[in-house]
Amino acid sequence: LNSKLPNTKDSIFSIMSNLAHKNNALNLSQGFPSFPVDTILKDYHTAAIENNYNQYAPMAGVTFLRESISLKMLKLHQANYHPGNEICITAGATQAIFTAIQAIIHSGDEVIVFTPAYDSYVPAIQMAGGIAVEIPMKLPDFNIDWQKVIDHINDKTAMIMINSPHNPSGKMLNHDDMIQLERLAVQHNLIVLSDEVYEHITFDNNAHLSAARYPELKKRSFITASFGKTFHVTGWKTGYCLAPAYLMKEFYKVHQYLVFSINHPAQIAIANYIQEESRYLELASFYQRKRDLFLNSIKDSKFSFDASQGTYFQLLDYASITDENDVTFARRLTIDYKIAAIPISVFMNGTDPKMLRFCFAKEDHEIIKAAQILNSL
Amino acid sequence: LNSKLPNTKDSIFSIMSNLAHKNNALNLSQGFPSFPVDTILKDYHTAAIENNYNQYAPMAGVTFLRESISLKMLKLHQANYHPGNEICITAGATQAIFTAIQAIIHSGDEVIVFTPAYDSYVPAIQMAGGIAVEIPMKLPDFNIDWQKVIDHINDKTAMIMINSPHNPSGKMLNHDDMIQLERLAVQHNLIVLSDEVYEHITFDNNAHLSAARYPELKKRSFITASFGKTFHVTGWKTGYCLAPAYLMKEFYKVHQYLVFSINHPAQIAIANYIQEESRYLELASFYQRKRDLFLNSIKDSKFSFDASQGTYFQLLDYASITDENDVTFARRLTIDYKIAAIPISVFMNGTDPKMLRFCFAKEDHEIIKAAQILNSL
Ligand SMILES: CSCCC(=O)C(=O)O
Ligand SMILES: CSCCC(=O)C(=O)O
Repeated sequence: LNSKLPNTKDSIFSIMSNLAHKNNALNLSQGFPSFPVDTILKDYHTAAIENNYNQYAPMAGVTFLRESISLKMLKLHQANYHPGNEICITAGATQAIFTAIQAIIHSGDEVIVFTPAYDSYVPAIQMAGGIAVEIPMKLPDFNIDWQKVIDHINDKTAMIMINSPHNPSGKMLNHDDMIQLERLAVQHNLIVLSDEVYEHITFDNNAHLSAARYPELKKRSFITASFGKTFHVTGWKTGYCLAPAYLMKEFYKVHQYLVFSINHPAQIAIANYIQEESRYLELASFYQRKRDLFLNSIKDSKFSFDASQGTYFQLLDYASITDENDVTFARRLTIDYKIAAIPISVFMNGTDPKMLRFCFAKEDHEIIKAAQILNSL
Repeated sequence: LNSKLPNTKDSIFSIMSNLAHKNNALNLSQGFPSFPVDTILKDYHTAAIENNYNQYAPMAGVTFLRESISLKMLKLHQANYHPGNEICITAGATQAIFTAIQAIIHSGDEVIVFTPAYDSYVPAIQMAGGIAVEIPMKLPDFNIDWQKVIDHINDKTAMIMINSPHNPSGKMLNHDDMIQLERLAVQHNLIVLSDEVYEHITFDNNAHLSAARYPELKKRSFITASFGKTFHVTGWKTGYCLAPAYLMKEFYKVHQYLVFSINHPAQIAIANYIQEESRYLELASFYQRKRDLFLNSIKDSKFSFDASQGTYFQLLDYASITDENDVTFARRLTIDYKIAAIPISVFMNGTDPKMLRFCFAKEDHEIIKAAQILNSL
């Protein structure tokens, strides 16, 4: 059999979560919250099932949910998305990303991806017949070198993918970055895929600059977002995609044949839950407290770090502790020290960054326990 | 923008369901049950959410659920599927079909599809870069002409797709069909995708002959299945795929990047529910009674029909009523007579079969109402 994805190994998230489980280790690897879901959201879900929302949802998603997203984009970003033809509810942001790429990328098209990059981006491009052009972010700051981007654009370039707040670094794009991106996209007629799944988890007054805020950028952008990450229900697999109608039209075509529609009761539950606007706005301070607890608790450790600007991840540099590569060190930490993290080299081919990614979407006592372990190294 | 799917229109299921809704018509078009879900299954779902199964499920699905599927395949079909590497839980069978095709089909590969065919098959093949070779079933019996299949096989043929019980005709493949298929698949080294979503809805002692029952066929087959159709929860979007390990390995790679994992609490609920074995076995008689009620109630109408052998669909031939094509007649029935059905020409390019598909997964009073309307024509 001739594999379409010959280089794909087991997912690093599965590998590390399984290793954590087997070793009874604190699991700060795969990104998901360890605390329970808001009772109000759970009750809405139960009610949705009781009220017989158990058959197919509409293809593009529950109308009321799409209307609420439209309203949110207007209020938060002064951006108009028509619920009828510019929004699609998806089985998580991963499906949204796969679908947007599949809808747009033709055989031989090039897509610019900044590394480290979430592990689904490059294979999703390859499955559409495209070519991923990987541009490393500048370490240790994870800045984008826009001159390098210009150097990589050619006639085949069809799309640029961005991700802010950025997984795994927590880096956020600033206004200058967005202006540069907008200029390039317009000048070279590029589509942008802006993965904004951590849009509501931002710290220290760093404002999330959605692609939707920049009118010329908005015109050519897909934006992907996640209810799972925002409402602590990663296992409900509900996200969405926004795009202007001419792009969303192509997205719908693929979505229709890929999955047709997604889990109905979860959509109803979330639609009801977000009628209370404060839901979104509490999240940043909730996670800022957790990030601060984590960083304050390890400030005297041998790890060095720049505080994460957003996401529920924190990179720690362990160069002063060991020369091991990050995969080896991550394994050893899990087995010997009972704490699991993600080695970020898996998102940046062939590098040896000596950094691990820790997820702090955890109960306070777990964060404190994690810090104790890290301080002992 | 250069569309990847230039011929895709709105889904016929969305079109007809919306038209039914707008006209306050009985909706016998899109296939979904109108009766409520078993309270026991709903309670398991609520418990799953209460018990905090709200974060990512394992990539391939909940282990306990995969084990139960494995057991079922052994009991019903004497077929071995290892839960660890031969089963994947998917966001409905549609995602399973898309994923299997994406995993196997390379650019230029040919895939044999029998028409009428479920509307996602051909676009899914095209998105993988493949070429759909459509072979019409012989009307009015919907038989497969295996000589025709042989005539269409060439060096580029990579896959044959079958669907039994068949949507929209209700036709089931018999032992001879399966033997022919097995022989061709072995002889020409073809992969088979066997869409068995209606496996448990079979009538009049027609036995469902899973591809899993034929050892040489099993070795080269993906089988797709649906919990939504079996347990009256199409909106939960849970299905699965079975395949031997060397094929499932490729399926997992695509699944991982396409959606990663699927709704967790729904998987837990279904896993608990199917511990009671009779769940599967009650379904055939449940739907047989509905089919019989429908057919007995319209036996004196102007429609003619062969009784459906399986699925929850019945084709009705309306040639003695009007010359209109099926799309026109379906619209008129919905608007003027308040009953919606699916025009099957949309699944068989450029034909004019004068048949509509009616879904009888409805409450008895709806079936009786539908029959009254049809009798009045
Ligand atoms: C889909 S499992 C991975 C979750 C995640 O987004 C991450 O850990 O980066
Ligand atoms: C995904 S909506 C269509 C449901 C169905 O399987 C059918 O009506 O044939």
